[in-house]
Amino acid sequence: MTSSNKSAVDIAHVYRGTFVHSTDHTVVEILEDRLLGVDTEGKVYSICMEWSAYPCEGHRLVHFVVCSEFFMPGMVDTHIHASQYSYAGTALDLPLLQWLNTYTFPVEACYKDLAFARNVYTHVVKRTLRNGTTTACYFATIHTDASLLLGQIANDFGQRALVGKVCMDTNNFVPHYRETPDESHDETNRFISEMLKKKYPLVMPVVTPRFALSCSAALLGHLGEIAKNNHLHIQSHISETKEEVKLVKELFPDYDSYTDVYHKHNLLTDKTVMAHGCHLTDEELKLFREKGASVAHCPNSNISLCSGMLDARRVLNHKVKLGLGTDVAGGYSPSMLDAVRRTLDTSKALTIQDPQYQTLTFEEVFRLATLGGSQALSLDEHTGNFQVGKDFDALRVNTAIAGGPIDLINHGEGPKVGTRDDRNIAEVYVAGKRVVPFVETT
Amino acid sequence: MTSSNKSAVDIAHVYRGTFVHSTDHTVVEILEDRLLGVDTEGKVYSICMEWSAYPCEGHRLVHFVVCSEFFMPGMVDTHIHASQYSYAGTALDLPLLQWLNTYTFPVEACYKDLAFARNVYTHVVKRTLRNGTTTACYFATIHTDASLLLGQIANDFGQRALVGKVCMDTNNFVPHYRETPDESHDETNRFISEMLKKKYPLVMPVVTPRFALSCSAALLGHLGEIAKNNHLHIQSHISETKEEVKLVKELFPDYDSYTDVYHKHNLLTDKTVMAHGCHLTDEELKLFREKGASVAHCPNSNISLCSGMLDARRVLNHKVKLGLGTDVAGGYSPSMLDAVRRTLDTSKALTIQDPQYQTLTFEEVFRLATLGGSQALSLDEHTGNFQVGKDFDALRVNTAIAGGPIDLINHGEGPKVGTRDDRNIAEVYVAGKRVVPFVETT
Ligand SMILES: [Zn+2]
Ligand SMILES: [Zn+2]
Repeated sequence: MTSSNKSAVDIAHVYRGTFVHSTDHTVVEILEDRLLGVDTEGKVYSICMEWSAYPCEGHRLVHFVVCSEFFMPGMVDTHIHASQYSYAGTALDLPLLQWLNTYTFPVEACYKDLAFARNVYTHVVKRTLRNGTTTACYFATIHTDASLLLGQIANDFGQRALVGKVCMDTNNFVPHYRETPDESHDETNRFISEMLKKKYPLVMPVVTPRFALSCSAALLGHLGEIAKNNHLHIQSHISETKEEVKLVKELFPDYDSYTDVYHKHNLLTDKTVMAHGCHLTDEELKLFREKGASVAHCPNSNISLCSGMLDARRVLNHKVKLGLGTDVAGGYSPSMLDAVRRTLDTSKALTIQDPQYQTLTFEEVFRLATLGGSQALSLDEHTGNFQVGKDFDALRVNTAIAGGPIDLINHGEGPKVGTRDDRNIAEVYVAGKRVVPFVETT
Repeated sequence: MTSSNKSAVDIAHVYRGTFVHSTDHTVVEILEDRLLGVDTEGKVYSICMEWSAYPCEGHRLVHFVVCSEFFMPGMVDTHIHASQYSYAGTALDLPLLQWLNTYTFPVEACYKDLAFARNVYTHVVKRTLRNGTTTACYFATIHTDASLLLGQIANDFGQRALVGKVCMDTNNFVPHYRETPDESHDETNRFISEMLKKKYPLVMPVVTPRFALSCSAALLGHLGEIAKNNHLHIQSHISETKEEVKLVKELFPDYDSYTDVYHKHNLLTDKTVMAHGCHLTDEELKLFREKGASVAHCPNSNISLCSGMLDARRVLNHKVKLGLGTDVAGGYSPSMLDAVRRTLDTSKALTIQDPQYQTLTFEEVFRLATLGGSQALSLDEHTGNFQVGKDFDALRVNTAIAGGPIDLINHGEGPKVGTRDDRNIAEVYVAGKRVVPFVETT
């Protein structure tokens, strides 16, 4: 079996059980009764069936063979607004643009207050970890210090995260929640340099123009340059609703498309993830493919706000990188399992409209929630599956956990994804470190 | 305030808090800080703001004013296959007719074994109660004794239930899972008379032809007569998928419509509930209205099996009675909160297809899950809201419960339905009796 070229003394832990993951070549691979070694740096050293691969004693063995348990890769939430978690599950009665003005902007303005920010951000990091999100790509707010705090909290709890200080210099509805182009530029630079100074092992800054409708061309240009000069990740929104697409066309008449607006400002790179993309044209998807940019599919949000239904099959056929996002609070659930279910629902809704439609399978959606997400965030060198050399980002799932939502487990029936929830996630690991259950601090 | 004409000594309990329910005249009424008295028969005696309405001491006061708590009516699941609960959350990769032959019929055949039946039925009754289903309309299987056992278990745990022994005399795919017309007729009679003999206060038999495709015209005729002679409830399936509608047309060429097949056999009455109805025509809905029959909307199932999307607004506009159902296991979740969410999702999906569509509001769906369901089952004299004289079927909901799925409650924000689950249901009452948390039997 494959194993990296290290001495056996580097092995910190060996896990025994069934491992379920996606690879470059298989949609879902189920490895039954394997031994997975994790080295002292938290990386997968080998997966094999033989003890002889581990000649050295002295490592801890976490042994279990309960048939209701298995390991899967930690899930990757490619799009979540940490700042909107305070009202997740409420306020879903308006379409996008009114929703932003009525609910979102007034709440986001509160993050000037660091105590408020600390409270919500602590909750969102703990909640998403407990739900099995080992990697999250966060929107914070325009406030640099609160955004830095989100990075610190993610680091403290051991979550892998991209954190974005939001940039927006146009906001006609809530004028106290916007920046000047210069503020936005300077604060983005400060955010990035202060975040990088921390040398967090798993938390990185991401350049974050809110979306074309909240940013002047000048600001978009600045941000594209900052990203380029620092080789940074980029995140934004695109083509979520038809109304937005129409307004972008009016505001940026000289560009070929919505995608072209980002592209011309150096914001469409192979480290770019764009949320939604429900209404992208084939030409735009081709540009995504060409640039290596990815789409974050946020089905709960798209349904909840009646934004549209992403044809995920079409995105995959264009060979555009695709991950899943909860898009809290446009999506009401912070759980990636919910994102999995809603992705299947959307694909089935498209099938109801067109019986010839090639519905996504559960296995394909599992892949999107794990390996697909890591690719969408250009983090697939580090996470997304149990490939040797990647960090051990994993969930120990117990479908039969006491007090859980599942009653009747038949051997070999596999994970009952329909009725599973956070109670079935017994442990969460990021880079080899167990981060859930939380260690109680006293 | 209204109160029935009884002496105060009949009051068994008084509950204080916020009561949220639907009435004949309001979609949702929120009664803050009220006193609700329940009499010794478990019926609502009065709801009022003044202690003076309760002149007599000696009743127990359940006092709470926590702002994260409220009472709502117990939910009514108008369509659930108790027998299919054993595989809920799995096996959703086939369309309806293949799904029945491949997964459903082979499993249902196992209920010949009463020990098997007891295990699953105990789980399903406990699970649905814990999820806040105070009234359930159950399909069992063709087995009379196992169906009687389901009634007994519902009675033992205190759930209000309609229980149907399934009738089907045609089944070409799993021949060992069907009856002769005579068996079906005789066993239905035995089932009804044995069930009625038990004199359960809250559990009743319901005449249950599986659906037109599994029943000969002769059997449908028998069942219509049995229902008529005993003034019984009737349940079945209708117009779930287009393929099924087409096959019914072929099998019953002399009838005006699918609905007419049931109607001509006396199976469309004001005590009839038909699951799905996704593809009913206006003429059929008019016949439903005329006869007082109702539709059980099962959105999770309809999406999961790609059956279709019920236009619930159209059903309401036709003034046809409408309730919600989980349709376990075509629907993967036994939770009525899931049915509420999926009903909103389906309505929003229809809105995405047609922006002029009048999306159901959360309040309307709350009504469907409670009062609407009780009307659909013709049980609204007894349950569905907190009207004086009805049974006290109630949930005490605590959105801030420890260990629950909701983190941040702002006062006055109301129930976060999006992220709520069974952990937020602190107590469940049926007919005045607390049935959840379960009393541990030793
Ligand atoms: Zn977003
Ligand atoms: Zn059904």
